[in-house]
Formats: sequence, C-alpha cells, structure tokens
Amino acid sequence: MTKVHNFSAGPGILPQQAIDNSISALQNFMGTNLSLIEVSHRDKEFESVMADARRLPLEILGLGDDYDCIYLQGGASLQFCMVPYNFLNTKAAYLKTGVWAANAVKEAKFFGETLVVASSEDKNYTYIPKDYQVPTDVDYFHYTSNNTIYGTQMKSIPECSVPLFCDMSSDIFSKRIDASKFDLIYAGAQKNMGPAGATLVILKKELLDKISRKIPSMLDYRTHTSKESMYNTPPVFAVYCSLQVLKWIQETGLDTMEANNNAKQQLLYSEIDRNEFFRGTTAVEDRSWMNVTFVMNDESHTDTFLKLCKQANINGIKGHRSVGGFRASMYNALPLESVQVLVDVMKNFKP
Amino acid sequence: MTKVHNFSAGPGILPQQAIDNSISALQNFMGTNLSLIEVSHRDKEFESVMADARRLPLEILGLGDDYDCIYLQGGASLQFCMVPYNFLNTKAAYLKTGVWAANAVKEAKFFGETLVVASSEDKNYTYIPKDYQVPTDVDYFHYTSNNTIYGTQMKSIPECSVPLFCDMSSDIFSKRIDASKFDLIYAGAQKNMGPAGATLVILKKELLDKISRKIPSMLDYRTHTSKESMYNTPPVFAVYCSLQVLKWIQETGLDTMEANNNAKQQLLYSEIDRNEFFRGTTAVEDRSWMNVTFVMNDESHTDTFLKLCKQANINGIKGHRSVGGFRASMYNALPLESVQVLVDVMKNFKP
Repeated sequence: MTKVHNFSAGPGILPQQAIDNSISALQNFMGTNLSLIEVSHRDKEFESVMADARRLPLEILGLGDDYDCIYLQGGASLQFCMVPYNFLNTKAAYLKTGVWAANAVKEAKFFGETLVVASSEDKNYTYIPKDYQVPTDVDYFHYTSNNTIYGTQMKSIPECSVPLFCDMSSDIFSKRIDASKFDLIYAGAQKNMGPAGATLVILKKELLDKISRKIPSMLDYRTHTSKESMYNTPPVFAVYCSLQVLKWIQETGLDTMEANNNAKQQLLYSEIDRNEFFRGTTAVEDRSWMNVTFVMNDESHTDTFLKLCKQANINGIKGHRSVGGFRASMYNALPLESVQVLVDVMKNFKP
Repeated sequence: MTKVHNFSAGPGILPQQAIDNSISALQNFMGTNLSLIEVSHRDKEFESVMADARRLPLEILGLGDDYDCIYLQGGASLQFCMVPYNFLNTKAAYLKTGVWAANAVKEAKFFGETLVVASSEDKNYTYIPKDYQVPTDVDYFHYTSNNTIYGTQMKSIPECSVPLFCDMSSDIFSKRIDASKFDLIYAGAQKNMGPAGATLVILKKELLDKISRKIPSMLDYRTHTSKESMYNTPPVFAVYCSLQVLKWIQETGLDTMEANNNAKQQLLYSEIDRNEFFRGTTAVEDRSWMNVTFVMNDESHTDTFLKLCKQANINGIKGHRSVGGFRASMYNALPLESVQVLVDVMKNFKP
C-alpha cells in the first residue's frame, strides 16, 4: 500500500498499532470469538476496556483520585452546551480565539451571562490575546488551547482564581502540561487521541457539587460519573480505539511526544520562514505546533503547489476555507519523515 | 474460530459482511490508502458514505422526500431529551411499556406536561396496554415499539390523530411496517442496524416548523438536518458500519427479514411452550420477536441450564437482572441455526 503522508486536520492520523489492534478486536475481541462491536458493553471484557480507558488519561496527565474521567458522545460541540448547562450559574468568562471558542460562547449564552474577556476576532483569529484579566466573580474561565482552523496555540496556562476549563480537542497529550491547574478538560477524540465518536471529559470531582440547575439526565455530568461512563451504551469502537492510542501515548511518554512535536514544528516553520514563496499566517509567538497554517506569497501558485503535494502522496494539506492556502496538521502520530517530505516539496518548488 | 451463537441484547450480532467491510475500510478506505478513521469527514469519500447512509433507511422504509434522515450521537437516551426539547410545547402523551419508555417520560417532564396514557408497570411490564385513548390536544404521542428488557413488542401501530413518535431501537428493520404513519422515528444503532455510537433519526420535514423553543445548537434537530448530518464531526466508524448493515438489509429485503424473524420466534416460543422445564414471562399476544424472555419453572435449574448453553457456545442468554431467567435476543443477523442450537439444548435438558 502506498504510504500517504496524512496532514488531515481531523479526523486525522492515528498510530498504526492502534488501528491494527482495533482491527484485531473487530475480528476476535479478547478471545471471545466475537467481534468487539457484537458483545454487550456489560460483559467483563468491555468493562475492563472502559476501566482502562478511564484510568490512562489521568495517569498520563499525572492526575489523582480527585479527578474523574468519562467518555461522552457528541464531540466538543456538545460540551459547548453541557459545560454551561452544568456550571454556568450566574456568569462565566470566555477567551475567544477562534471558531470553536466562539461556538462555546454562543452556547453558553443560553444559560447565563457570558463575558468575553478578550478576542482576536479583529484579525481573523491570527493571534492569541494576551492583555486581559479574568474576573474573580465568574463561575469559571473557559479557553481553547489550540485553534485548529487558524493555527494558533496557547503557550502557557492562563492564571486565574476561578475554576479553569479548557477545550483541548486538538492538542491534548501533545506535550507535558500541569493538568492539575484545570478543573475541567474536554477533547473530541478525533484529533490527537482516537477516532471520531468519543469525547473525553476530565473533571475535578468537587466541581460536581457546584451543579445547582435541574438538568436532563444525559446532559448532567453526574449521570455519567456516577455510572462510570456506562449510564447508557458507550461508543464501544471509539472507546476501544482511543484506549489503543492512549496505550501508545503512555509507552511513548509525554516528554518524547513533546520532543517529536517540537522537531516537526521547527522543521516546517523554518522552511516557511526561509522559503521566499511561502509565509505563515499567524503571529510568530502564537504559532501552533499542531496545525501549521501558511499561504503562498503569490496566491496564483497555490494550485500548482497542491498538485505537487498530491504527487508526493501528501494528504489533507488544503487550508480551511476561512483562512485559505495550506494547513499542515501534525498530530502526535505524524512522523517527522512526513514533514520532511512536505518540506522537500516546498524546497523544490519552482513556479 | 469457534462459531458462537450470539444472543446478546445489544450491542448484538451483526451481519458478517458488515464487519468484514468495516475491517477492509479500516485497512484502506475506498482506495485512499488511509484508514477510514484517519480521513476528514469533509473528503468526498466520506461524504458519499454519509449520503448513502442517509438515503438507504428512507428507501428501505418506503419513505419519500417529505422525510429527512440524520445520524446523531448519544443513543436513544439523548433522544429522550431532544424529542421533548424540540417538540413538547404544551403537553405530550406517552405509552409506558418498559424501562426505556419510562426514561423517555422522565426526560419529557423537564420540558412540559407529560401524560402517560397507559402503563404496564403494574405487572413488571409483562404486557402491552391496549385500552387507551390518545388525546387530540397533545403535541405528539410517543411509544416504544419493542421492549428489549421485558420482551414485549407492539403488534400494530397505534391509531392517533396527533404526530406519532416511536423509539424503534430494538426492532427497526425487522419487519415490514407502514412507516408513513410516523412523524418521527429514532433508533440507537447497536441492536438491529449497526455498532454502538450512532443514532438514527428519521423525521417528517414539516415537523421542524413546529419548533418554537430556543434550543442549544447540538440539541436542535434543525442544526443537523440543515447540515446534512455533518454540523460537526459525525461518528465516522459507526456510520460506515451502519451503512454496511443497511446494504445487507436492502439486499435481503424487509419481507425476507420478517419471514426469517418469524421462523426464529416460532421455533423458540414453540419450544418454551412445549417444554415442561420452561415458561415465557410475557403475555402471549405481546411476545417480542426480537427479545424472547423465559424462565425455568424450577428456578434452581437456572445455573445448570446456563452452563449447558455455555458448553454449546451460546452467548448472551442470561436475562436482565430485573426479569431474571433468560433472554434470547434474536436480531436480524442471528441465523435460524443458532436458535436451533438453543432449542436443542432446551430439548435435551435433564435436571
């Protein structure tokens, strides 16, 4: 099979061993002689999968028993609604750094006062706002750690005295962080930790005591934490495959993951800065390691370059329609070798 | 690999060709040289999958352009909340025939007046109530076509003059029905049409005009119909695998499916009625073709019989804890041969 260099923004590249293990489980799940997707989620085999899939994220992030970990459905988009439904009692603060952050704000408005402490919408989200204060009288402060569409990323965890919530969909497990600073973290799996169809939610258990609204069962975090993420049938395949990715992340270690991701971003951004035909689209200090956005100085060359990429078996490099140009998504599983192939195409570009 | 006779109540047995096709797509999706779960859902290949997966249910059920079909996440349990959130403006009527129907009632109460027109809770849901009237002044009438836990099933579609809503999670596509009588049908995929992680929703387009409440985006059906079920990243694997099952259902045809399911239920219920060691747990006229619940007349034999089933490679036969005894779930993909194996074990039973 031809090796494809997969820069897709999500669903994106996954470690081959996770795909292979998932295929094996579809053929014969843990010696049951049944497919993974044909067994009851109440069978002891799947219960062990769910237990491991809930334990590993906490272990990898160095979090203890004061945190819970569950798998939900509906992607980060449903979390945009569930977070304020559960925790916005009076007022919440949001940092607006892209489309997903803006969507989170939009849904929060259904549930209470929503304060945007800062926004980079004025420059099409090409930078991360820095001069802002998080008020002390809000229920929580919410931000997006990495902006998949625009290619910006938070380089440090904001300081604040209120509960800190973060949508880490596109850079979770990509580097070492002090996860204990967060009260709630969520991530759609389909970028750095698994296939589409599962959403990871990690939250401080004491946060659940702050829920005061009456909430429909499926939208209440307590429903899921109290049933160990098995209130109703979980997305079995997506959880199983995510567990295989988590095992690979744990084996690799976050320090190695970070070093690999650093090498990839250095290689690509260096070429963007060196090459007269290209330029980056974001503020240099806010450049994302996960999603590298760039354009051609002469836009009329764009299609030519896309063709050359296709010839080199590069997939998913076309930029989001709201930014144009190119976006190279370099999730954990993307090898440095694929970035080198892209850089070589850039180096050899002649109009 | 040892052939297992899979009577699991859900996730349950799926046609082997659907599993095989899903494995192939995980290895190489439509000639992309990438795995199904690594490509963007916006790529033309997956867009064609979603288009087919939305078209086939309508074709199979004989529904026209006045209906829409979408795939959501969160199972039937999230529909228990979304249905009244969107459509319960004043008052809604529910038929309470089991745990899932009761859960649907519970969630509806968050949104308005909920009228239970009849309930079989008085006899642990062992029958379907028949003498009831659906009021004419309600927003809709909701019922559950098949009660997975208790083993009862509606044998006809209730008559009513208000919009008719149905949770068909455990018997959708198991027989020919007049689907045009319904305004909204939903089904968690993991019983008769796919793996866990996708929920099919079919609704009459004109129903959407009745939404008057302000609803968070992800919980508003219009969000998903207007974006052709791609508002956010869909559960790619679950949709793909469901499409493979739908193709098999279409090839087989609902008449053949119904004849096969009829043969299976006749074989098993005949043995239950004939065999002095067993008895059914539900009213004879309400017996489910999908989930056959039965117990031993002498309960002390239960464990012995379970052991014999295990020796015969029968899986998932243990009854739900609220009913006890045994439950043989005989979804579309279960072959008659597996039912024969179970019946043989029953015939040969000696205490």
